[in-house]
Amino acid sequence: MATMRDVAERAGVSIATVSFVVNNTKPVSAATRERIEAAMAELGFQRNVVARALASRRTRILAMAYPALEHRLGAAGMGFVTSAARRAAERGYHLVVWPVGNDAAELSDLVGQGLVDGVVLMEVLLRDARVDALVASRLPFAMIGRTENPAGLPHVDIDFDVTVEDALTYLHQLGHREVAFVTEGEPRATFRLYGPKVRAERAFERGCAERGLEALMVECEQHAAAGRETAREILARHPGTTAIMIMNEHAASGVLSGAIRSGVRVPDDMSLLSIVTTRDMGAMADPVLSIMRSPGEELGTLGVDLLIGQLEGEPMPEPRLLPCVLEPGESTAPAPGR
Amino acid sequence: MATMRDVAERAGVSIATVSFVVNNTKPVSAATRERIEAAMAELGFQRNVVARALASRRTRILAMAYPALEHRLGAAGMGFVTSAARRAAERGYHLVVWPVGNDAAELSDLVGQGLVDGVVLMEVLLRDARVDALVASRLPFAMIGRTENPAGLPHVDIDFDVTVEDALTYLHQLGHREVAFVTEGEPRATFRLYGPKVRAERAFERGCAERGLEALMVECEQHAAAGRETAREILARHPGTTAIMIMNEHAASGVLSGAIRSGVRVPDDMSLLSIVTTRDMGAMADPVLSIMRSPGEELGTLGVDLLIGQLEGEPMPEPRLLPCVLEPGESTAPAPGR
Repeated sequence: MATMRDVAERAGVSIATVSFVVNNTKPVSAATRERIEAAMAELGFQRNVVARALASRRTRILAMAYPALEHRLGAAGMGFVTSAARRAAERGYHLVVWPVGNDAAELSDLVGQGLVDGVVLMEVLLRDARVDALVASRLPFAMIGRTENPAGLPHVDIDFDVTVEDALTYLHQLGHREVAFVTEGEPRATFRLYGPKVRAERAFERGCAERGLEALMVECEQHAAAGRETAREILARHPGTTAIMIMNEHAASGVLSGAIRSGVRVPDDMSLLSIVTTRDMGAMADPVLSIMRSPGEELGTLGVDLLIGQLEGEPMPEPRLLPCVLEPGESTAPAPGR
Repeated sequence: MATMRDVAERAGVSIATVSFVVNNTKPVSAATRERIEAAMAELGFQRNVVARALASRRTRILAMAYPALEHRLGAAGMGFVTSAARRAAERGYHLVVWPVGNDAAELSDLVGQGLVDGVVLMEVLLRDARVDALVASRLPFAMIGRTENPAGLPHVDIDFDVTVEDALTYLHQLGHREVAFVTEGEPRATFRLYGPKVRAERAFERGCAERGLEALMVECEQHAAAGRETAREILARHPGTTAIMIMNEHAASGVLSGAIRSGVRVPDDMSLLSIVTTRDMGAMADPVLSIMRSPGEELGTLGVDLLIGQLEGEPMPEPRLLPCVLEPGESTAPAPGR
């Protein structure tokens, strides 16, 4: 394969001048440019990305690191991926998805290969080895999510405090005084550090304490059958419960059908509110679930902008936290007797 | 950045000898190897993949091309992605996902950059510009799916003929004589060429003709609200229908709730069978949907093996077609009056 050196020799110019043309980094006279381009054509010089990456260290490829084997990608997650891909394309970049693990080894390996200009990190843990690896690599990155102390690290995220507070306010105003919170449960130890879960649980505890309510929280695996079992458990152990808030979109319809099969009328006897999910997921249940809609589309776009901004030398924007937005469906109503 | 030439000069050996060590392509004496490795360490020579890609044209990265912006990725689709990622890792490769469009331009762009050793192509159309681009690129590839005439092209796919025939046999044996088939509908013209849809529709028409049944087919957008509307339409226009077969996992639970809301008892008055989906998706509905389970896990693994086999010079295996497997739930029963 022809190199820039070969092109320089053929065109009778310096390698630096060839580089200016190949990478479009400095203006070159029209006559010189023509000579260089003719030499490239004669020699079959390929301006491919591998060669350009060596020369300019830029590929215009962005990686979205998503631990798909460890965290089930649902409808809300897909909103991040598709909006990020769309935004990258709009700005002249390719987005690729790396389904790499949470342990940072595979991420480090891929990052070390110099194939991408930057990384958008998804499903961030409060203490996340992948963040350390990215900081060490000096590769630009942006988090959709955040570590325990994300100050100084570029990130956007769901505002779990506001989301849970809004959800509790809504249910409280409907008269509910015994509210259970169903979260995602997983055997992996790292899941105890999963930011969305920890932040939402803390916000729920705080919101319940402020209102003088008991904070009943139940973990549930991410599938419908587990949701059914969880509904039965809540009804058996906490028969006074009149509302269930669910942050586990794969189990939400199961919680609903579990309650209904136990003889509970939704929403007359029991309200259900599925948070951090999509309208489509809510509509798959019957009655249609009231939801707090994930701002996945907005955050996927903002996350990519945050990364490209660094690559293109734009001033670093402030971190952004966006809450989920309430979209009432058919599964919430005033508490019984109100 | 230090080059192999710099390393060769420092170590007093030929560039070819450095290359043998870097790429592990030929045995080199221990003494020479030590000299070269010392020179690399002194010069900070990076064995990164970009350099290796230039030298050996191998990155051990495989791309899975999935048109995520054009075709909604559901639970069945995720089965392909996660199993392919797992299989690639088992065999010492990285799998990355390219959410590129069906129009082949972005795929050609990425392929031309020489960053991956091969491509697994998903959501194949009967006539697919991406296949032409891959053939022209000479990059090894494997299809999960297939074109109209895939002979000679490495592929694995769902056996839609057997899947639909098995589904029809099951419903027919339960006594159903008026069976509607709900498929995916999309405004894009290319969707008329979407292999799974075309093959399943043809198999349904053939199976109905052989049994002397009318082949009622209805397209439906890929979300639950559209499924509800479709159920109402079928009941209004074809009130004799006693079974609905659905190949549209995002709409399936909507078809069910649409039927129930129209006053139909499932499965007493009407049977529902959701095909090419997962057990989890079926369990999200109430009653739990009877399904034909997608062999996504198996095909993701086989597709990656088919690609790596080419890269590693293994004999090309035969194309494999696997049917979906019936898993009865609570939504199918003998036809009314049987």
